[in-house]
Amino acid sequence: MNRRNRDERTVTVRYRLLAASRPDAEKAAEELALEQSAELPAEVIPETLRDHSTGRVGKLEELPDGGYEAEILYPLSLAGEEITQCLNLLFGNSSLKPGIRLTGLEWKPLGELFPGPSLGIAGIRKRLGIGNRPLGCTAIKPVGLDTKQLGELCYRIALGGIDIIKDDHSLANQRSAPFAERLRVCLDAVDRAADKTGRRAAYYPNITGDGFETWRRYEIARELGADGVLLMPQLSGPGIIRSLKGNGSSLPVMAHPAFSGSYVLHPDQGISPSFLYGELWRAMGADAVIYPNAGGRFNLNLRECEAINGALRDESLPFRTALPVPAGGIGRDSIGEWVDRYGPDTIFLVGGSLYRHPEGMTAAVGEFQERLERYTP
Amino acid sequence: MNRRNRDERTVTVRYRLLAASRPDAEKAAEELALEQSAELPAEVIPETLRDHSTGRVGKLEELPDGGYEAEILYPLSLAGEEITQCLNLLFGNSSLKPGIRLTGLEWKPLGELFPGPSLGIAGIRKRLGIGNRPLGCTAIKPVGLDTKQLGELCYRIALGGIDIIKDDHSLANQRSAPFAERLRVCLDAVDRAADKTGRRAAYYPNITGDGFETWRRYEIARELGADGVLLMPQLSGPGIIRSLKGNGSSLPVMAHPAFSGSYVLHPDQGISPSFLYGELWRAMGADAVIYPNAGGRFNLNLRECEAINGALRDESLPFRTALPVPAGGIGRDSIGEWVDRYGPDTIFLVGGSLYRHPEGMTAAVGEFQERLERYTP
Repeated sequence: MNRRNRDERTVTVRYRLLAASRPDAEKAAEELALEQSAELPAEVIPETLRDHSTGRVGKLEELPDGGYEAEILYPLSLAGEEITQCLNLLFGNSSLKPGIRLTGLEWKPLGELFPGPSLGIAGIRKRLGIGNRPLGCTAIKPVGLDTKQLGELCYRIALGGIDIIKDDHSLANQRSAPFAERLRVCLDAVDRAADKTGRRAAYYPNITGDGFETWRRYEIARELGADGVLLMPQLSGPGIIRSLKGNGSSLPVMAHPAFSGSYVLHPDQGISPSFLYGELWRAMGADAVIYPNAGGRFNLNLRECEAINGALRDESLPFRTALPVPAGGIGRDSIGEWVDRYGPDTIFLVGGSLYRHPEGMTAAVGEFQERLERYTP
Repeated sequence: MNRRNRDERTVTVRYRLLAASRPDAEKAAEELALEQSAELPAEVIPETLRDHSTGRVGKLEELPDGGYEAEILYPLSLAGEEITQCLNLLFGNSSLKPGIRLTGLEWKPLGELFPGPSLGIAGIRKRLGIGNRPLGCTAIKPVGLDTKQLGELCYRIALGGIDIIKDDHSLANQRSAPFAERLRVCLDAVDRAADKTGRRAAYYPNITGDGFETWRRYEIARELGADGVLLMPQLSGPGIIRSLKGNGSSLPVMAHPAFSGSYVLHPDQGISPSFLYGELWRAMGADAVIYPNAGGRFNLNLRECEAINGALRDESLPFRTALPVPAGGIGRDSIGEWVDRYGPDTIFLVGGSLYRHPEGMTAAVGEFQERLERYTP
């Protein structure tokens, strides 16, 4: 029997399966392959489709820390030509089943579907005019400040010499500081600070909104001269980054993990953090990816964070690299050790500890940036 | 001290917190209230904002099955005027922390933000011309069939007298059956069957796509006369249903849970299924919500499924009701018991077992519908 057309292109996807034994793991893998493709019991799948429209199980290996790694090979034709359907193929229904964790895939066959970053690490460095040193970022906050107050804060941060200022992810289009107004005032603030310091901070507004609003804000950001944008893929919809890129744009996109934690928290379900933040978001087009750093108030451990960094910078993937942005719990005191650990191709996002500096924000930022700028490999 | 302006409107949100003791729970609740609003330590939040721009802890009660239920009151102004930011306020960063489960909220203050279903249960019944009996639905599948084959299948299903035929959620815009072509052929199929039977099945195509594509497909569906649409909110972006409704449309939206399972699977994190599927998706505008039924190949238990049904039909919420669509593992044999249990205001979505009927699809559908139509309360 001619089992599978030789020309049939497939994508190989990896999952970790909880299973008590190899036969259990085999059964789970077979079910997974069908659930994510035909979604029918094997015996009622039309003969003509069995070979080229259903997933099939590849390698299955017991893992040292428990469970099994299963490779499933899906016909590429099932992914169609959109990211939403590809994610649906990878993990749509199986997200609803316990004991299945999506952990990786071979990107090469999916190359056309996933554009990757438009700038990459080298492109962002060039745009910012910053060579081989770690980058600094902080957010203007809290939500509730009015536009003028946010502008003033932005000015004081920029005076300290920071590389990138982003909106707090809670700044949307609230009446206290509407999007376009805030954008104008903050861009003016970084310009005014640059007149004093001779060095301009980049400003990334948060463009996440309902449906069309995300594009509208992206267009406003581009027209008004923003240096990049902040986007929460799990709220805007994961397919949206690619469609922004399709606009012929080169504004860097910094992705924020809000609302995505439920995918990564539990090791026996969801998606591994290095795959979600390090590969998938980069593949969708994020130039920089914020993730909750180890040792702070969130839950990822150091190994997971280093795996995210490694995935974002991995030059063997078929698209540009992206910058890791560890955040949450990195303080003025601990920045040195994190810089030593994570190295120069990192944007360090520091929040609360700058706001707490006894001499005020500008001094706090100055100290923080100074630490980054005296980096030597 | 005038703690909070009397006019300040708030929204009360409920979470289940894992905590070993009441003091631990109090601390966790305080941290949650700040994390979701100012995202700064309390001592650096400007005095002027402390009262009207940060969350505060309301009731905190120990739960009989472990953990604590915390109410957090957020100023309504933080939610702004979009669903994405409201979800961000409810669970953005806290999705990244273990031991926090979003379980409910008081909808009334959010009324303007969440339109709810455009039709509701009564509206869907009127549109379908079906009185007080349970409704039947199946999907055309598997992906990989070409347009002609899907049309033929659609015809055979419609001949059996089913109420609603939907696309399998894996049918997107693949080359095997492109969206608009499939829509035309399937609408033609239900029309042709209606000429024979005197009774027309409704057809709901899957409009989920990347960004603009979802709207484009919605518009095509409307222009070509589709009876409703299928949408996966966690893939299209949760804010998108509302923007479809903003189009002045009344096409019913059936929401599909693909890629959303990681929110509901683990009881100590994420979002409770009755809140996510029963309240939130209904509030966003879904007229019918598919969820993985108990006893099948998915993981929700009967109590959770009944809670989803109850939430979707709850007439005390400030928007129209919606129809539960239990799916996965409901078979020809067991349909009777599920009808008795869930009652008439339910769309029963049956898949594999119809495809397995020895006398073919039309006979299978006929039997299935017959069981629904002889329902007596």
